[in-house]
Amino acid sequence: MTVAGVDLGGSKVAAVLLDDSGVVRGEIWQEHAIAGPDEAVNLIAEVVGELASRELATAQRAAGQRAAGAPGQLTAVGLSVAGWLSRDRMEVRTAANLGLSATPLPGLAEARLNCPVLMENDGNAAAFAEYVRGAGQPAEVLLLITLGTGVGGGIVVSGVLAGGSHGLAGEIGHLTIDPAGPDCCCGGRGCLELYASGPGLAAQARAQAGQPEGAAILSLAGGRPGQITARQVVAAARGGDAWATGLLARAGGAVARAVACVTPVLDPDLVVLSGSVAMSAGDLILGPARRQLARAPALPAVLSPVPIVLGQTGPGAAALGAAELARRLPGSFPRGRPPQASLAAAEGRTDVHPRNRTRE
Amino acid sequence: MTVAGVDLGGSKVAAVLLDDSGVVRGEIWQEHAIAGPDEAVNLIAEVVGELASRELATAQRAAGQRAAGAPGQLTAVGLSVAGWLSRDRMEVRTAANLGLSATPLPGLAEARLNCPVLMENDGNAAAFAEYVRGAGQPAEVLLLITLGTGVGGGIVVSGVLAGGSHGLAGEIGHLTIDPAGPDCCCGGRGCLELYASGPGLAAQARAQAGQPEGAAILSLAGGRPGQITARQVVAAARGGDAWATGLLARAGGAVARAVACVTPVLDPDLVVLSGSVAMSAGDLILGPARRQLARAPALPAVLSPVPIVLGQTGPGAAALGAAELARRLPGSFPRGRPPQASLAAAEGRTDVHPRNRTRE
Repeated sequence: MTVAGVDLGGSKVAAVLLDDSGVVRGEIWQEHAIAGPDEAVNLIAEVVGELASRELATAQRAAGQRAAGAPGQLTAVGLSVAGWLSRDRMEVRTAANLGLSATPLPGLAEARLNCPVLMENDGNAAAFAEYVRGAGQPAEVLLLITLGTGVGGGIVVSGVLAGGSHGLAGEIGHLTIDPAGPDCCCGGRGCLELYASGPGLAAQARAQAGQPEGAAILSLAGGRPGQITARQVVAAARGGDAWATGLLARAGGAVARAVACVTPVLDPDLVVLSGSVAMSAGDLILGPARRQLARAPALPAVLSPVPIVLGQTGPGAAALGAAELARRLPGSFPRGRPPQASLAAAEGRTDVHPRNRTRE
Repeated sequence: MTVAGVDLGGSKVAAVLLDDSGVVRGEIWQEHAIAGPDEAVNLIAEVVGELASRELATAQRAAGQRAAGAPGQLTAVGLSVAGWLSRDRMEVRTAANLGLSATPLPGLAEARLNCPVLMENDGNAAAFAEYVRGAGQPAEVLLLITLGTGVGGGIVVSGVLAGGSHGLAGEIGHLTIDPAGPDCCCGGRGCLELYASGPGLAAQARAQAGQPEGAAILSLAGGRPGQITARQVVAAARGGDAWATGLLARAGGAVARAVACVTPVLDPDLVVLSGSVAMSAGDLILGPARRQLARAPALPAVLSPVPIVLGQTGPGAAALGAAELARRLPGSFPRGRPPQASLAAAEGRTDVHPRNRTRE
């Protein structure tokens, strides 16, 4: 009665095994270089199998004898994928870094793993993890923003992930921060992703590599502009380099502008920053973001600015969120199949309104 | 086993009575000039009592004799209020046009009506009406924008109203449309409300009243600039006046900018325009909004622009939505009290993910 969560990132895979009570029984985190559906399914089966084997070995040691169950006795598996998924989450529409296109990954994985498989994008999965087990626990409306290879995110409203018409709810990376900013791949200009993603930070640092301001970052990259990544930007800032610090502050300011744009409409209880860039830069991005948010106008003017915090579920957030979603798959409940809920706010659904919600 | 919905607007009250099956049994729509909690409760009791009396009379006529039930035999009442409500919807924080401040209106109304009373703001109530019975029926993520005395709105995600940290989710009126625009009451500049609300349109027309462009509108207002409202702007545009038409097109453009700002994050299935200004101007606002949205960049670029339509539940949308919310109050169900749902996406809640939702 265990579930697994697997996060297929562009270059890393994370996996987690949860027992019946939601306790983490095992974790995997490794680089990968897969491309295409077959390699993706192989990798998923490999990490899930390894977690299950480890768990079986632990159980055998505990029992001092061969345990009854075989490895792979999973109730459900949740997949998190860094890509654009179909609205019903049954297909990866495109995931360029994984070589996937129009791939029915949950179905392929179900056939291989012989258990129900649910899929979600990485921003949504991380948002769900933070909602259930992390920073967002008391939030009715939670907005998570991931700063990593791209800028993505997720929205949870009263425990329900917003999917969106094209499955893109929460994908905040292409909000316009500066209409006069540089061109973005999306056809817009000055999008958040250009300022606050890893590649966006690296591109800005590379452009400055020949100037005195960019010297500290360039030195950390061994003098090769092409080797500059967000990692060197953060390292230079931590070493006291003013220009690198300013670059991260600008990223924080861009995040604040995006949040200020969304806040009047979403009124979130909490904004959670997640993803490798946010986690490594920490206060270097968070501090400037908070300061700028404190200056944004609010209506009514008495309101305090929306709290913005770092995620608390670590680099495995998306894997954990996928596992938590898998726990909620009908049929994966130890105590029997709960009734299938309807989207339609059907008669009998009573939590549509704050008055009827028990956690406020 | 009937419920009533009452929409307390700034100057009008609408009320509706729904039977067991959700069929509209009666409606009321009238001007009011109430101020303060006592007058508000009196007005609520008056319109609800009138609806119940009418229904009783109908039942008596149908039965040809005195019916068993007495007037006021309501299962629940839903209130919609044009104001800022507390997060838990138990208090009107401020409703300037109604003279309410820190008023526990549902509690006061419950004591008077002797049945459970639920409260919601008008934008949210209208959004719920459109979700359940109007334009938004198949939408997973619905954004409703009301253009009226102010600009408000509501967000429904999988049948659940987003409340927000301060109870302000969906209140899109103070999204910045033009950072160089005029000052707004909220402390910001160039907010949507300045361009697309009734008073915003009237203010622009008044400012132009002395110029040749404003002559048609001024003439419809009897030559008195102070008498200009959005009604004359719409009438002048319908009469072919180019400047008035341009003013409404600008309002539509402002709506499109607000929608374009929110779309990358919410990815709504549908945007519904509601409120007196939207309903009277119709295509004069909707057409320009659609044209501008079609030009906005989208990611992925293959996406079609978000559909934007007029509300289908009429001027009584908020009253209807409040009644529909009241139907979902625990205890107001004819077939018995459904289990209280938990906000916490608790174990057993299976509709947190698109895969588990029956209506896609």
